[in-house]
Amino acid sequence: MAKASSAPRTSRGEKTHRRLLDAARIEIGSKGFAEASVSSITRQAGVGQGTFYIYFESKEEIMRTLVLEMGRDLRQQLSDINSSAPNRMAAERAGLRHFIAFARENPDLYRIVQEAQFVDDKVYRAYFEEFASGYRKALELAVEAGEMSKGDLEVRAWLLLGIGRSMGEVYGLWRTDVDIDYVVDIIMDILENGVKAHGS
Amino acid sequence: MAKASSAPRTSRGEKTHRRLLDAARIEIGSKGFAEASVSSITRQAGVGQGTFYIYFESKEEIMRTLVLEMGRDLRQQLSDINSSAPNRMAAERAGLRHFIAFARENPDLYRIVQEAQFVDDKVYRAYFEEFASGYRKALELAVEAGEMSKGDLEVRAWLLLGIGRSMGEVYGLWRTDVDIDYVVDIIMDILENGVKAHGS
Repeated sequence: MAKASSAPRTSRGEKTHRRLLDAARIEIGSKGFAEASVSSITRQAGVGQGTFYIYFESKEEIMRTLVLEMGRDLRQQLSDINSSAPNRMAAERAGLRHFIAFARENPDLYRIVQEAQFVDDKVYRAYFEEFASGYRKALELAVEAGEMSKGDLEVRAWLLLGIGRSMGEVYGLWRTDVDIDYVVDIIMDILENGVKAHGS
Repeated sequence: MAKASSAPRTSRGEKTHRRLLDAARIEIGSKGFAEASVSSITRQAGVGQGTFYIYFESKEEIMRTLVLEMGRDLRQQLSDINSSAPNRMAAERAGLRHFIAFARENPDLYRIVQEAQFVDDKVYRAYFEEFASGYRKALELAVEAGEMSKGDLEVRAWLLLGIGRSMGEVYGLWRTDVDIDYVVDIIMDILENGVKAHGS
């Protein structure tokens, strides 16, 4: 795994660091990693090119930082949703809803994480491993609380995560005219009851 | 959508066309699109660089052709699996099994399709739209035959496709030591019965 970027030590440093990350998000999210340039990022951030290298070693490193930051933010949001949901199925519903809406509102961030697999596959995979690991812990609590049937929670965590990711792509980026609650209701019905016809 | 590559008219032309596609698959699949070069593709295919441009306009076009060809091949394989399955749930099981095994055996092709979203987003999206459309038709037949519960088959097709894709990534590319049948059994149990605890 790459080393973390130098943490800024002053509040002014923090602001510059933040401006560089915001500019990188816009630059990489709109042009893609290959076309994005450090000079364009610093221009958008309103700092000199030398300043970039105080905080980040390279374009690869600011990309990695964006992915790790987005993972942290999103996990925090989903953890807050979890805490306030009355039970696991309600948490699944709210989490799925949140993630599709997140992809719809932040298509650039969704694409940056997708593109990370071609820039630093280890960071890309670590992003999802951290999600799956947190998910599995939440499922363990749900099984203990009798809110979810027993089973292999590792596979189940990857399955639920995969459903979120893929439906985030389809209904967050592509079918943006479809009502999110409508989609979430259908997915939740399948997760709760399955798709097999009764008696077949 | 980009125009199709020039179809070769002779069997010798077909062989050259095939050799270029096979070389491009290895080149792009191992180095990624940005690092892959037409000169390296033609060297591996054992043809002059000028020959490349008889069949393909650009590196982008051979990438698009690879994605469309892979989509066609995989849809044909899944259609054959469908035809020989006794019912829809058996077809789901066999299709999921086939797709995870396919990703495990062809990680380069899996990655090429993933990377296509950054080379030609229209071709990438069309790839999945075609899968979802075929899937929806299969689900319509299953509902008519009473093998699957009724519901919005568009959302359901995307959901099942998304499960295949994401589990193909996790258990095809990452967790290659896990038995595929073991994973498929768990997914099918959830698809058939849901994950909600009985009575909760």
